[in-house]
Amino acid sequence: MRVLLAYSGGLDTSYLVAWLTRVKGAQVTTLAVDCGGWSAAERSELAERALALGAVEHRFADARAEMFQRVIRWLISANVRRGGVYPLSVGAERGLQAEILAREAQIFGFDTVAHGCTAAGNDQVRFEAALATIAPNLSVLAPVRDLAPSRDEQRAWLREQGLPVPPAGGKYSVNQGLWGVTIGGGELHTSSEPLPEEAWYWTRGASGSARITLEFERGVPVALNGARLDPVTLVEQLNLSAGALGVGRGYHLGDTVLGIKGRIAFEAPAAEVLIEAHRELEKLVLIEEQRFWKDHLGDIYGRRLHSGLFHDPFQRNLEAFFESTQEHVSGVVKLRLQPGSALVEGVESPFSMLKASDAKYGERASSRATPEGALGLARALAEPARLFRRAGEAGVLEVRP
Amino acid sequence: MRVLLAYSGGLDTSYLVAWLTRVKGAQVTTLAVDCGGWSAAERSELAERALALGAVEHRFADARAEMFQRVIRWLISANVRRGGVYPLSVGAERGLQAEILAREAQIFGFDTVAHGCTAAGNDQVRFEAALATIAPNLSVLAPVRDLAPSRDEQRAWLREQGLPVPPAGGKYSVNQGLWGVTIGGGELHTSSEPLPEEAWYWTRGASGSARITLEFERGVPVALNGARLDPVTLVEQLNLSAGALGVGRGYHLGDTVLGIKGRIAFEAPAAEVLIEAHRELEKLVLIEEQRFWKDHLGDIYGRRLHSGLFHDPFQRNLEAFFESTQEHVSGVVKLRLQPGSALVEGVESPFSMLKASDAKYGERASSRATPEGALGLARALAEPARLFRRAGEAGVLEVRP
Amino acid sequence: MRVLLAYSGGLDTSYLVAWLTRVKGAQVTTLAVDCGGWSAAERSELAERALALGAVEHRFADARAEMFQRVIRWLISANVRRGGVYPLSVGAERGLQAEILAREAQIFGFDTVAHGCTAAGNDQVRFEAALATIAPNLSVLAPVRDLAPSRDEQRAWLREQGLPVPPAGGKYSVNQGLWGVTIGGGELHTSSEPLPEEAWYWTRGASGSARITLEFERGVPVALNGARLDPVTLVEQLNLSAGALGVGRGYHLGDTVLGIKGRIAFEAPAAEVLIEAHRELEKLVLIEEQRFWKDHLGDIYGRRLHSGLFHDPFQRNLEAFFESTQEHVSGVVKLRLQPGSALVEGVESPFSMLKASDAKYGERASSRATPEGALGLARALAEPARLFRRAGEAGVLEVRP
Amino acid sequence: MRVLLAYSGGLDTSYLVAWLTRVKGAQVTTLAVDCGGWSAAERSELAERALALGAVEHRFADARAEMFQRVIRWLISANVRRGGVYPLSVGAERGLQAEILAREAQIFGFDTVAHGCTAAGNDQVRFEAALATIAPNLSVLAPVRDLAPSRDEQRAWLREQGLPVPPAGGKYSVNQGLWGVTIGGGELHTSSEPLPEEAWYWTRGASGSARITLEFERGVPVALNGARLDPVTLVEQLNLSAGALGVGRGYHLGDTVLGIKGRIAFEAPAAEVLIEAHRELEKLVLIEEQRFWKDHLGDIYGRRLHSGLFHDPFQRNLEAFFESTQEHVSGVVKLRLQPGSALVEGVESPFSMLKASDAKYGERASSRATPEGALGLARALAEPARLFRRAGEAGVLEVRP
Repeated sequence: MRVLLAYSGGLDTSYLVAWLTRVKGAQVTTLAVDCGGWSAAERSELAERALALGAVEHRFADARAEMFQRVIRWLISANVRRGGVYPLSVGAERGLQAEILAREAQIFGFDTVAHGCTAAGNDQVRFEAALATIAPNLSVLAPVRDLAPSRDEQRAWLREQGLPVPPAGGKYSVNQGLWGVTIGGGELHTSSEPLPEEAWYWTRGASGSARITLEFERGVPVALNGARLDPVTLVEQLNLSAGALGVGRGYHLGDTVLGIKGRIAFEAPAAEVLIEAHRELEKLVLIEEQRFWKDHLGDIYGRRLHSGLFHDPFQRNLEAFFESTQEHVSGVVKLRLQPGSALVEGVESPFSMLKASDAKYGERASSRATPEGALGLARALAEPARLFRRAGEAGVLEVRP
Repeated sequence: MRVLLAYSGGLDTSYLVAWLTRVKGAQVTTLAVDCGGWSAAERSELAERALALGAVEHRFADARAEMFQRVIRWLISANVRRGGVYPLSVGAERGLQAEILAREAQIFGFDTVAHGCTAAGNDQVRFEAALATIAPNLSVLAPVRDLAPSRDEQRAWLREQGLPVPPAGGKYSVNQGLWGVTIGGGELHTSSEPLPEEAWYWTRGASGSARITLEFERGVPVALNGARLDPVTLVEQLNLSAGALGVGRGYHLGDTVLGIKGRIAFEAPAAEVLIEAHRELEKLVLIEEQRFWKDHLGDIYGRRLHSGLFHDPFQRNLEAFFESTQEHVSGVVKLRLQPGSALVEGVESPFSMLKASDAKYGERASSRATPEGALGLARALAEPARLFRRAGEAGVLEVRP
Repeated sequence: MRVLLAYSGGLDTSYLVAWLTRVKGAQVTTLAVDCGGWSAAERSELAERALALGAVEHRFADARAEMFQRVIRWLISANVRRGGVYPLSVGAERGLQAEILAREAQIFGFDTVAHGCTAAGNDQVRFEAALATIAPNLSVLAPVRDLAPSRDEQRAWLREQGLPVPPAGGKYSVNQGLWGVTIGGGELHTSSEPLPEEAWYWTRGASGSARITLEFERGVPVALNGARLDPVTLVEQLNLSAGALGVGRGYHLGDTVLGIKGRIAFEAPAAEVLIEAHRELEKLVLIEEQRFWKDHLGDIYGRRLHSGLFHDPFQRNLEAFFESTQEHVSGVVKLRLQPGSALVEGVESPFSMLKASDAKYGERASSRATPEGALGLARALAEPARLFRRAGEAGVLEVRP
Repeated sequence: MRVLLAYSGGLDTSYLVAWLTRVKGAQVTTLAVDCGGWSAAERSELAERALALGAVEHRFADARAEMFQRVIRWLISANVRRGGVYPLSVGAERGLQAEILAREAQIFGFDTVAHGCTAAGNDQVRFEAALATIAPNLSVLAPVRDLAPSRDEQRAWLREQGLPVPPAGGKYSVNQGLWGVTIGGGELHTSSEPLPEEAWYWTRGASGSARITLEFERGVPVALNGARLDPVTLVEQLNLSAGALGVGRGYHLGDTVLGIKGRIAFEAPAAEVLIEAHRELEKLVLIEEQRFWKDHLGDIYGRRLHSGLFHDPFQRNLEAFFESTQEHVSGVVKLRLQPGSALVEGVESPFSMLKASDAKYGERASSRATPEGALGLARALAEPARLFRRAGEAGVLEVRP
């Protein structure tokens, strides 16, 4: 049996390389799909570890640009933050990773793929939902979900077999990607305690501050501090520079697809800065109704992506909507980064609706407005409530004679 | 003509006291409705100034408790932040102020009331909409809106008449209330520049940090750092303590009822802290669907309050919904305040849905869940997309033979 | 093993009585929960058949009044028609039936209950979801779902055992209840063919017409043609009289919880008439925003009930909202029933907002309105679009020099 | 002064031709924008009447095709029926008519346009909002709104001046267009009485029935009973044939932009049939979430069009969404027309999601589904409610010791 295994280098998938090879007699090819978060050194280590564990071949796919174009771009356009805080980070990658797994399986003639998701999280649903949609004929193995070996059992078995054990993540389980890092386990198994300072992975508790500028074109970030960058590089640089000031730290107490609650910590400096900046730029160039429905539909878009519906046709319909709204979303945003937060201090755009008006808010009405017109507006807005109230008084009299 | 004038002590309403008295020959009674933000000294000054300007009587109404119970309570329940940032602050007061104005007018036999709103802002709409709804038979004067004397003209006329001119607010116009302070004018007439540090009113750019706890009962804050407080006192204390760390500063680039854009700065330390805390507590005790629709309906609730629809029956329907969701929203929230932001580090509740489960997110599924059940869930979620895709392939073949 | 079996008298549950008794050695008590649709004769037959098949006891629960108060009342308040046509009919009963099953199990000391739902429909999900929520400690048997005996196999086995076979429903499967009858199978397995006239169950293709009046109090129907009736009787009478004119027939091509498409025919005369009448009465007494959000939230309420979430807390929150909107929904509705449809020809209410105004639509504006005010309203509504357009022209010039 | 007047041939605009010419000394050019509803004879009469009343020139624009492509197409895609019944009919034309008025004004060098809307309806807002958005520099005259001559006064003045008086519409005011006819006045000034049979304009109370088929391609109707037709012809034929059976009659008790209630009767046979057919076809080829959000966003789209926001950028964003959803909406729909209603009896599509599945609803699950998977789905759906309930029991114990 030839198996293509989605390989992250962590304990679960490392265990699977060996277990599928030695126990199931499979010929395992590992595939590392890079959606951001690995250094060159880490990429090499991954390959070496896979082969040492028994893989017959290790493959690598750099999916960062595709991750930006097909996932992150829309998360920015829609200002997606689950529960008002969490930018989805690594969860947003799973659908694309599953697609690339299926794509490589087809190219290289695999009938069977495997993933290392556990039975207690969202990722299993995301992988299975994606594969069921786009590659329903593929066999999918998920031994960690089905047999539920504990992490200690996995380590013990690898040692027993004389095989390398991946460096333990301590008491936390950590996932990294272009759009952030998530931290699970430890204090996060309860709702009440924070992470200790040393457990944060990318960010530092800091005391300085910095001012930066970001430029957007049609909703896509194109320049940082005046330097035009491709989006992947721009995100990676922001993760470093904003992360150094502690921006983008948060806790997400969330609802899983399985219906249970779960809590993670996350660090998403680039996501925090880009979404704040993009949202405030939109306020300058979009009308209220656009913003209002973008917020609501963005929430739905993110919720569905989080649930594993990356390949669902309704997501494409929402993307058509978001794209249509971004025509004017070009301009420059000035932010002040301070420990733990990013404050948008100014926005400018050739499509500014503020500049398009001769009114001055609070001081001078538009030359097209009149006092009597404003009064007419107020009365028209209030008329339904006035009639409802009047009808209520009449009705009460009539009903209770 | 006897007129009851809503009096804030600022330039517009001070001018009106004198103008209505001297030019229109009216007997003006001033009414100061306190929704928070005035010290005892300021209250006395108000009264003195009103009488000095010619008012025949000055009345004062402490509306802070009513402001909390009928407005702020719902803004917390619904986690209202307009555009994701602005907690409505002083705009939320106008409907209640208009109602108290109408109430006092009825009690003391006034047929005519007056307000000092300009033609270029939202407040005129809020006052007129409220009065049109609840007191349609009252005559309403709004000379500043109708005649549009500039602020310089008002000052000049007062000086000419030998009358006291209210202390100039410099280049900014400032409004204070229990739920925050707003700053308009100056740099805020454009979208691109921040306020200078000295222009902030309540908050200080600071470098320390602090940890606090808040307790809620059915969605209402009842204790700060373990001390039970009435809500008004709790909000006032938080405005001081969180404000000292710069928490709650922001800019709001918004859409007015008149259809134009406007920009203000705001400082709302208590609102920022209470909404962050309340929202995170809800994540522990509510199901996802409750939170999701609370967010959306909260946005609508806030948008309509902002537009002057405080007395609209649909607001009451939404409040019935919000109230119904708050039954379990009791517990303790731990926050870390740092310069400019508040981070919820932990939440605890007797109604914790996390404690109610034996699952451990990412590690151990609930004892009621099975791997095959999770696979069934994933496949059911993906089934519509799979069928849509399959139908698309079949349809394309059939349509294009 | 003592088992309490939800018994409908149909093939699946009749087979289960015998199978659980003879194959599993269980002592089966049957429980018929009546949510409408059974005559007195049918109730007796049910009891006899159950005992003949081996049940040790047969119990009967008349749940019609509870069905109205806890389910139908809200479906009317929220004007629920799935996909714009289907009033949910029998699907709406399942949650309540499961609750009564669990309630009786507790009272009479059963640890195990059973239902006869198949693996291919929504009802299995509704039963299991309800029982998982309110009685998670109960054992639930579902042998028809798990073993999937075909209907022919069930009949053969019953004959083989010398047991009575329930009267065959021909090629259709039919479900009846207070809120309608559904028909499945036959032509309905495809999307393209109608039912033959003789397959309709309650309604007749007819050519007459009739005028009726309905009276509502706070959203609840209380009188038909001037005669006050309890709601169950009112619904039963409407099913007969409107059904005789063919009102309430339809097809529902729907999405199941399992993600597949399914098609049924339905006959729901009372539901059709009551929802049309209630919705039009609401237009007289509610403001637009109330109606608008009632429609949307009603759609959500119905969708979730359809998915088996009868016991979900968010449903209670929505009911609080609906209830709050019904305060003024009292009055009389005149309808014309004609073959296949019901047309509301007039509505009257003590809370009429039409009567509360002195305006005449299209002819005379309210005395409070002015031409300049109406122009101000129009311009304020259009101002965002005007500024967006102007900014677009300016932006295009600036961006493409 | 040269004035371009939007001319419908009715009393208000006929009066204006003469009044602007004789009282204001203007040179009036009349423009009749045809969005459907006029016969060739009526078009000639219009021209003659305009010139007889003093117009210096009469112009005619056939806007039917543009009306379909830019308005009706989207109303079908979005299944728009205001309040669940009214397909917007003539109200949907106003924005386009105003645009064509402005376009012709620009081409022929007019600085001033005029319309004949009254102060008591929605049309004034639609005209003014459209012109304010797309032609803010044009002068707009609306003497009927501003001076409010009654219909009797207008007739008297025309007679006095020896000018032709347009044929009186009896006690009703009638508007016709491609998408329906609306009737106002008479019994419709109250909420309680129906129109007499003779007052209906297009439709007949009838007793026959008919079966028809409609074909759609990407959401657009392309054939009737197998004959391919351009959309305008198709709509006109349907208005005749379905109208002859009384299909499409209704009453609309609605909320105006001015905040008052108004009631009209309408006859929209083609709209009724096309929307029913299109909506049911969508159920075969779209997933539930697409349909669900199409319904809600369609309601918003229609509500905003009704309020005069034809030129608003958010409408374009919604159209991008609707267009994206229509890719699979191709197929054939079979309907049965009967007196007063249209019932969809069958739908077929190359993109059928029903055909794409091997499951049979209610009888046989998909080969990919398992009983344990379905149970897993039910439990996952119910898990939030189960935990909420459990937390509630625990919380109650803890809170009330």
